[in-house]
Amino acid sequence: MRSIQKILVANRGEIALRIMRTAREMNIATVAVFSEADRKSPHVRYADEAVCIGPAPSSDSYLRGDKIIQVCKDLHVDAIHPGYGFLSENAAFAKMVQEAGIIFIGPSPEAIEIMGSKLAAKQAAGQYNIPMVPGTETAITDRKDAKTRASEIGYPILIKASAGGGGKGMRVVDNEADFDEQMDRAVSEAQTSFGDGSVFIEKYITSPKHIEIQILGDQHGNVIHLFERECSIQRRHQKVIEEAPSISITNETRAEMGRCAIDVAKSCGYYGAGTVEFILDEQGNFYFLEMNTRLQVEHPVTEQITGVDLVKQMIFIAEERPLTLKQSDLSIKGHAIEVRVYAEDAANNFLPDVGKLHTYIKPDGNGVRVDDGFEQGMDIPIYYDPMIAKLITYGADREETIQKMTRAIDEYQISGVQTTLPFCKFVMTHPAFVSGEFDTNFVSTHFQSEMLIGEIKEDALKLAAIMSAHLLRKTDQGTGIVTACENKKPSSWKLRSLRNL
Amino acid sequence: MRSIQKILVANRGEIALRIMRTAREMNIATVAVFSEADRKSPHVRYADEAVCIGPAPSSDSYLRGDKIIQVCKDLHVDAIHPGYGFLSENAAFAKMVQEAGIIFIGPSPEAIEIMGSKLAAKQAAGQYNIPMVPGTETAITDRKDAKTRASEIGYPILIKASAGGGGKGMRVVDNEADFDEQMDRAVSEAQTSFGDGSVFIEKYITSPKHIEIQILGDQHGNVIHLFERECSIQRRHQKVIEEAPSISITNETRAEMGRCAIDVAKSCGYYGAGTVEFILDEQGNFYFLEMNTRLQVEHPVTEQITGVDLVKQMIFIAEERPLTLKQSDLSIKGHAIEVRVYAEDAANNFLPDVGKLHTYIKPDGNGVRVDDGFEQGMDIPIYYDPMIAKLITYGADREETIQKMTRAIDEYQISGVQTTLPFCKFVMTHPAFVSGEFDTNFVSTHFQSEMLIGEIKEDALKLAAIMSAHLLRKTDQGTGIVTACENKKPSSWKLRSLRNL
Repeated sequence: MRSIQKILVANRGEIALRIMRTAREMNIATVAVFSEADRKSPHVRYADEAVCIGPAPSSDSYLRGDKIIQVCKDLHVDAIHPGYGFLSENAAFAKMVQEAGIIFIGPSPEAIEIMGSKLAAKQAAGQYNIPMVPGTETAITDRKDAKTRASEIGYPILIKASAGGGGKGMRVVDNEADFDEQMDRAVSEAQTSFGDGSVFIEKYITSPKHIEIQILGDQHGNVIHLFERECSIQRRHQKVIEEAPSISITNETRAEMGRCAIDVAKSCGYYGAGTVEFILDEQGNFYFLEMNTRLQVEHPVTEQITGVDLVKQMIFIAEERPLTLKQSDLSIKGHAIEVRVYAEDAANNFLPDVGKLHTYIKPDGNGVRVDDGFEQGMDIPIYYDPMIAKLITYGADREETIQKMTRAIDEYQISGVQTTLPFCKFVMTHPAFVSGEFDTNFVSTHFQSEMLIGEIKEDALKLAAIMSAHLLRKTDQGTGIVTACENKKPSSWKLRSLRNL
Repeated sequence: MRSIQKILVANRGEIALRIMRTAREMNIATVAVFSEADRKSPHVRYADEAVCIGPAPSSDSYLRGDKIIQVCKDLHVDAIHPGYGFLSENAAFAKMVQEAGIIFIGPSPEAIEIMGSKLAAKQAAGQYNIPMVPGTETAITDRKDAKTRASEIGYPILIKASAGGGGKGMRVVDNEADFDEQMDRAVSEAQTSFGDGSVFIEKYITSPKHIEIQILGDQHGNVIHLFERECSIQRRHQKVIEEAPSISITNETRAEMGRCAIDVAKSCGYYGAGTVEFILDEQGNFYFLEMNTRLQVEHPVTEQITGVDLVKQMIFIAEERPLTLKQSDLSIKGHAIEVRVYAEDAANNFLPDVGKLHTYIKPDGNGVRVDDGFEQGMDIPIYYDPMIAKLITYGADREETIQKMTRAIDEYQISGVQTTLPFCKFVMTHPAFVSGEFDTNFVSTHFQSEMLIGEIKEDALKLAAIMSAHLLRKTDQGTGIVTACENKKPSSWKLRSLRNL
């Protein structure tokens, strides 16, 4: 067993703070690294020591593994926690860390490598009895064979980048006639985004739900699961709202998914905290999607329903301690929901927003947890993911947790940037969400269409009010309001000017 | 069943906010009342409607039941939640509320009345098999008889005001020679504090622990308990730190205490949320102390370990709904601790402090909850209890919860007033607290004595440093530092001047 006395957190923002908080509770010293843009960030002040490692672009700072390892050597750091994103799933970095005699708080470089490739992951998991979405088992080399396989699977199918993630390099093909065009686009997107144009195909599930299982494995071969998270509410194929447990699965499915997740972890000798993602179809069948070899953004919902501090477990595992938690000790207590507070304008297709947090007052009280890395007066930098905070609520059941979330969203006061909070409120109060009748298409099915209708209605009301006002003021002068409106091109005027009324 | 649509919260600060938050989650409208001193308080802004009911002194505002009932009539309020303190245990007020056709969110006026008198409470509870501290069963009328009874019980004994609470009107008598003097003082104190000079006597337990059981009863005769809270860390006989579960009792004692608490509640036909307080002696025996017929300050620790929102249950009960929670559904999950953040100078015998909250930044993250009623820039008014906030942490076990509390205290940034946070940190890191070897005398046994030793040590070091500096500077001039010190009367000089170094 190797005792960890000092941890460097190779990350920024909320997750850096999240990790340091647990380290401090464990009486472990902390080192922050930061880019020039993050000099005033809370995570820098929170650490016992902090080192600037370069300019704002991640490639010059948070991705500079060499500099980070040098800081570890200079400050006698025992272990690195990579958080999520940046270097967290970079097998070469994990290897460099190990070779420098530093503990990498995460899985082995080999496990990262296997699960980092969708095809290698499927091959490894294939040793066990794990349901997979029908598709090609290797990257497509012959387009004609691929087309035949697509017909066998049945349209619609999905073309996916082998090295992909976050929805990039993914194309849906509805019928054979579109196959070539979509294939060209997918390959080109994969090449641009990941420097690797290899793609594979899969059956496309029309109404999918995204369900994932949190696992913990130690370095002695023990693996347990901490139940599921449902992450179906997404925009741009990226999660915005997550919850645990899922409303969509039965206890039998839960147990079976848990068994599969443990097997996937075992298939690559996994240790640390990891997440096995599944897709659930309309009939309740689930299929293995991929494994994320890191702490997830949405890990707090699992912490709230199990009472397990996942970062603490990761540190124990990195110290080569055997797991003290047993599967039979774990149970689901209550319900938890997380909403991600992004600096984005949901009404404008979730366009990222930048600016200063003029007002920033967080909700609190019974059943509320906020993980964030910002303070009032701070700027949202343009260089990074625009997440401001994660707002988590927990309660006795799903209904109570939704009520607490709605209350907490109402209490959250942010001015200076647009945020996803109004969207999250829309979701919490939407019948489809409340009833559980939703899938990963929620945003396009409900939000964007209903928002448009709402906007048109609201605009029509405002237009009527303005017309009446003008009419009252201007009838004496004989000026026709209709003409004024026509001159202003009502459609664009409606969209641009009325918003500011 | 009577449905509640609008609640008036007849209280201020954190508890007013706490109640309104749950009301909002339940989609119930809220009305705040406030004194002129609280015009800028968050609870005023949080409510849907808010009414100023008078000047700062409570007797002119928060205790003006007539004005509060008038507000209810004016604003069509269905129900009043009294919080704790103020009118919460005033049977006459509860009766006035009912007679005005408004729901009182609490027990019946009769139950408040019985449990409001220590002697009536003991008589009611006496119908059941509930252990009582040996003592007189009625108020003392004949001093000679009382002295005889005291000898039978055995010294030390305790003289307590019948109408008392919060340590007022309580005197310890070590032997018969002191009896008369202490009795005179107790009667006089009881008369001054409560307008009722009646007192009774009880066996004095030298090393007591304070353990209490949370109960919930409905209006259909069902009563359940939600386990215990240990509240032994007190100053001036008032709680500062509470936790659940208690480290001091076995499962058998827990079950037996729970049974007794339910019986006490049944003895007065109790409904609503209530707390039955017990004293635990060195041998592990417990005795019924009193019942508090309201929501307690420390209720959040119970919420954290059971997952039950107590305010929500109180509202359901007030609507005459039967309890849906069953005793067998309840279990203890993890551990929770609450520390009360008072504007008090612990180093100066917990003297209340007033002033402006120049800095006020709260801790957050995994396992942290803050219930408060202040914001940065606000003044702590001199008119009320000087509690700023309640900081609650929860974790998988007691050790983790203490670690989270220590971390959270370190994160809490308050400037402008002295607070009890440094004292709470002292407790969290003290071996006696960590091991569970503490009783209600913790402050005098550990804090005040060790602080004094620490202060003397620190002062001695500073004195030595100053002497050396003086000596170095002054040897050339032949001036003796010892003389200078003697002139300054070292003892008071040590205490007053060195503090400011």
